[in-house]
Amino acid sequence: MGKIYVVGIGPGGAGQTTPRAEAALAASDALVGYTTYIDLIRDRYPEKELVATPMTTEVERCKTCRDLALAGRTAAMVCGGDAGVYGMAGLVYQVCAGCPEVEIEVIPGVTAATAGAALLGAPLIHDFAAVSLSDALTPWETIARRLELAAEGDFVLCLYNPASRRRPDTLRQAAALLLRHRSPDTPCGLARRVGRPGEEAKICTLRELGEQQADMFTTVFVGSSQTRVVNGRLVTPRGYEQKGTL
Amino acid sequence: MGKIYVVGIGPGGAGQTTPRAEAALAASDALVGYTTYIDLIRDRYPEKELVATPMTTEVERCKTCRDLALAGRTAAMVCGGDAGVYGMAGLVYQVCAGCPEVEIEVIPGVTAATAGAALLGAPLIHDFAAVSLSDALTPWETIARRLELAAEGDFVLCLYNPASRRRPDTLRQAAALLLRHRSPDTPCGLARRVGRPGEEAKICTLRELGEQQADMFTTVFVGSSQTRVVNGRLVTPRGYEQKGTL
Repeated sequence: MGKIYVVGIGPGGAGQTTPRAEAALAASDALVGYTTYIDLIRDRYPEKELVATPMTTEVERCKTCRDLALAGRTAAMVCGGDAGVYGMAGLVYQVCAGCPEVEIEVIPGVTAATAGAALLGAPLIHDFAAVSLSDALTPWETIARRLELAAEGDFVLCLYNPASRRRPDTLRQAAALLLRHRSPDTPCGLARRVGRPGEEAKICTLRELGEQQADMFTTVFVGSSQTRVVNGRLVTPRGYEQKGTL
Repeated sequence: MGKIYVVGIGPGGAGQTTPRAEAALAASDALVGYTTYIDLIRDRYPEKELVATPMTTEVERCKTCRDLALAGRTAAMVCGGDAGVYGMAGLVYQVCAGCPEVEIEVIPGVTAATAGAALLGAPLIHDFAAVSLSDALTPWETIARRLELAAEGDFVLCLYNPASRRRPDTLRQAAALLLRHRSPDTPCGLARRVGRPGEEAKICTLRELGEQQADMFTTVFVGSSQTRVVNGRLVTPRGYEQKGTL
């Protein structure tokens, strides 16, 4: 019986991939993934069988891994960032629900939330909520409700998939909802193409957030009531000041 | 002028540390950190100046890095997991607020949320909220309110610092609050000492969660209404079934 490694390769090139993740790729017969991620590792594994498939073929991609494992081979499902955050790890388990004999090992990676946060400063130091603005698989009402409750709870927000060609307005809509609960001066940040050529970081206010350019390679951060800009970086305090120790 | 690298070394040994993080440690004159994390890298850098300090000395630890940088040296603030999630990155920026000439670079790592999730299955595949149950720097009322709002929003919850010797009851209290909003059959998981000797994973229900053993090395996961157990693993679907594509 073969095996499936579900591998988070981190946000960019080889410098952000853990040795454990590289070892899993090296131990696999076939590397399967979304074209963008296969392209990131193509040069590192010229001798491997590479199966690159486009967006929206996620179920087929997982079935390819399952079928390779059922045929006695070792397959790596290659994911950008972390495999378990808006990644393929869940779907691999679901597709293999009827084949408990297939061994699955998820190998974590540096996710876009923490990589983008590091580029912008330290916005995620305290409690935060991650919300995807993609309505492809989740009704917008659910997304909107989560945004409002997270804002009410004064969570820092990390928004994945803030906009796409099909939905150019979702970041603007999200910002409008958050403005019901948060000051328009709340510091926000955008991190784009983190760890890859063309990497960009920008800090703005919640008032300005809706007008920012964002796409599927952007991660957006909305501060809590405590988040501030310190020397040009987005920083959420942990609470040492309140305790009088700073 | 010197520099501070704030480095997330990941959840365990060298296999979970990215090459970029290792390069930053190698480029530093001094490695500063909480004793537990310095011990994890001690053998890899026998030639470095190591400054290991106990818990509750976080502000002094950051000032040590600042003073090294002001003296023209390169210091690495070593953090377990990711430096920007309940880590030292924010405090380093705050301590250096008056010294904008000190260069600070945060290097992200694999955080406990995604490392623990990978060990348990794929609980964080969809929207989630991270909440620390430590009331050392945050009033319990704020923590309780965030737990209730996150539960109301049907977020998956990832609980950091679920209990300690000083507060053995916080996980039980949190579970009781969550039971007001979530079914007692909600699948939950605990991941302990991820990536280190003694690594443990356990799956239980929300009804059973309050009675589980947890400590500062444990990360706790509480499923959303969609989370289920698939072949013994904790899995949150992304929504492919609802779309009829699975």
